[in-house]
Amino acid sequence: MSSLKPKENTLSALSLPSRMEAQLSFICAIDALKNVWRKTLLLDRSRVENDAEHSWEMATMVLVLSEYFDQKTNFSHVIKMLLLHDLVEIYAGDSYAYDCNAIANQQEREVLAADRLFGLLPTAQKEEFRELWEEFEARQTNEAQVARAIDRFQPLMHSYLTGGKTWKEHNVKANAVRNLMSVIGEASHALGEVAEKMISDAVNRGFLNTSETT
Amino acid sequence: MSSLKPKENTLSALSLPSRMEAQLSFICAIDALKNVWRKTLLLDRSRVENDAEHSWEMATMVLVLSEYFDQKTNFSHVIKMLLLHDLVEIYAGDSYAYDCNAIANQQEREVLAADRLFGLLPTAQKEEFRELWEEFEARQTNEAQVARAIDRFQPLMHSYLTGGKTWKEHNVKANAVRNLMSVIGEASHALGEVAEKMISDAVNRGFLNTSETT
Repeated sequence: MSSLKPKENTLSALSLPSRMEAQLSFICAIDALKNVWRKTLLLDRSRVENDAEHSWEMATMVLVLSEYFDQKTNFSHVIKMLLLHDLVEIYAGDSYAYDCNAIANQQEREVLAADRLFGLLPTAQKEEFRELWEEFEARQTNEAQVARAIDRFQPLMHSYLTGGKTWKEHNVKANAVRNLMSVIGEASHALGEVAEKMISDAVNRGFLNTSETT
Repeated sequence: MSSLKPKENTLSALSLPSRMEAQLSFICAIDALKNVWRKTLLLDRSRVENDAEHSWEMATMVLVLSEYFDQKTNFSHVIKMLLLHDLVEIYAGDSYAYDCNAIANQQEREVLAADRLFGLLPTAQKEEFRELWEEFEARQTNEAQVARAIDRFQPLMHSYLTGGKTWKEHNVKANAVRNLMSVIGEASHALGEVAEKMISDAVNRGFLNTSETT
């Protein structure tokens, strides 16, 4: 999907070196991340956020919260992963973490999307970016585990601070949240405690339901 | 400005350690960057972008375009600066680069905003973040010059690829664009050439006016 109109001005009108044109074409293609909408509400509840905003917030959270992660971590590498980790959703769409239907074929859709999107880049860069995304998905390195923990903590904090509106709309239960949030405590004991406090308080306030354990 | 409703759930309900509460309060406060709207159009022309999206795009551009900068540069440091550089606009507002009235008292407004926003953080982090922002503003280090060049190149590319709609609406002239964009070539010969090609082609296509030199 290109958002450019071929009959109007495009990068190809500029006779750029092919490598530069490929790189700028990639930058143009990923502008579409700003139109991939998530379920997470802004804290003022005015609207949901998009993947570009989400990625920025998480990368910035790394700068603020790095002291709380328990393993030796290259945080610049975490930030790179977080800047890129949702790009595949430009073609594959956002999959709400509590939507089993969306999750079912998520991986297949995202691999095809990665081929298409990272394929815009020159070879070495294509491989570098793809490896960063695959590292994030594989969740094996300390850096990927930190990135994943932040990717869970950020929407939890937003859901908690916006009265659980998104949880209620999607009938999400406390146990499902606890299961999904367990990766936070695995990467950061301190943030895992905060997550549990948010979940417990959400249950106490009645905006996270414990009646089923789906 | 806090977007949280004090009578509902807030971070203070969680009895967090004060340092953690301060850091999470800062993260909550900067959610408002998603509602600071710029003049720059998305490439699909559907709407203008906000500062959070702009910051994400620029940080990601660093990953793609780092090879084109001429001086020895710590790019992780550039990314940190870019993630934080517009936070003061949460309180100070966005100043369109071609709006002389907005630019006139921009610095004063932004210093007050920095006091207020970074003041939410624990002392050492407050100073660290403030120094990153001041480094960006001072434009002396290689890293700040690279960050500034990207901060100019990104809206130029968007304006060029969206038919100069924003330039036309604000009656921006080619010479004003050339003056503002000169910092690109100072940091990157290659990107400076691309910028000049975009400006020349914009003039040729009639969506950047040369009639005055304001």
